[in-house]
Amino acid sequence: MTIRTLEDLFVETLKDIYYAEKKLVKTLPKMAKKAVSPQLKEAIQSHLTETEGHVERLEEVFMAMDKKPMAKKCEALDGLVKEADEVLAEIEDARTLDAGIISSAQTVEHYEIARYGTLVCWARELGMEDAESLLQATLDEEKAADEKLSGLAEESINRKAAA
Amino acid sequence: MTIRTLEDLFVETLKDIYYAEKKLVKTLPKMAKKAVSPQLKEAIQSHLTETEGHVERLEEVFMAMDKKPMAKKCEALDGLVKEADEVLAEIEDARTLDAGIISSAQTVEHYEIARYGTLVCWARELGMEDAESLLQATLDEEKAADEKLSGLAEESINRKAAA
Repeated sequence: MTIRTLEDLFVETLKDIYYAEKKLVKTLPKMAKKAVSPQLKEAIQSHLTETEGHVERLEEVFMAMDKKPMAKKCEALDGLVKEADEVLAEIEDARTLDAGIISSAQTVEHYEIARYGTLVCWARELGMEDAESLLQATLDEEKAADEKLSGLAEESINRKAAA
Repeated sequence: MTIRTLEDLFVETLKDIYYAEKKLVKTLPKMAKKAVSPQLKEAIQSHLTETEGHVERLEEVFMAMDKKPMAKKCEALDGLVKEADEVLAEIEDARTLDAGIISSAQTVEHYEIARYGTLVCWARELGMEDAESLLQATLDEEKAADEKLSGLAEESINRKAAA
């Protein structure tokens, strides 16, 4: 693939985050299963439902551009998930495990916040209003999910882990 | 390595971000070299200077815990850098390249924001005041670097790339 314009780069980045969202649909249930705290389990499961919606929104963006939705291997998300798997496998204490799950999940959220933040700006610059509002809706949900995880960590999970 | 406590997890995460910061000291000059816009080059170079300071702050945190600074392969940062290298190599247009550099750099900034955000919370929970303030200082710089990149993108780089 040769990228010659901002629109080309936009499409390549869409393919990257499409791969990432589809992989997360498979990864989040495993994370929810590992979580000990019922609130953390619930937070991950509710974000899984949102993530399924993010996949659909990306498909709408592709279709609005008359393109077939296509995924492109995302080395970044693969690395984030690999690192999360490795760290979580090393944790023996249940309360510390929950703190580790939140930490790993937040690295994924931040990856998505960066990607969608960029895509929203590019869509605006390219005059793609429908794509911009679809991507903005997902960006808002990623930010809210990140804040929910921070809240859970600060209110209870970290305290239990440090006890 | 077996992680049994929040302090163990804190130290493992320190090793991870220590590897990441040290790798960035080598990676940022290559990114600055590729950048076309003088403002973007300058922004990356000034963040390189900050990054060298982040390495030193992490060494101070290790030493405050009577531990020798140690790096642990960070699959996430490796994935982010690999993805950036691959995308940037595909871009043929100079203005689009700058937009791609900012996009890639922001995925790295967000990784660091997630990691330092977590480390600050854990340091507070563990009652490690000196570590908390060192890590908070770096977190503030990572957030400022991310905002500077967003500003550059919105004010000029994206417009030029879309022109």
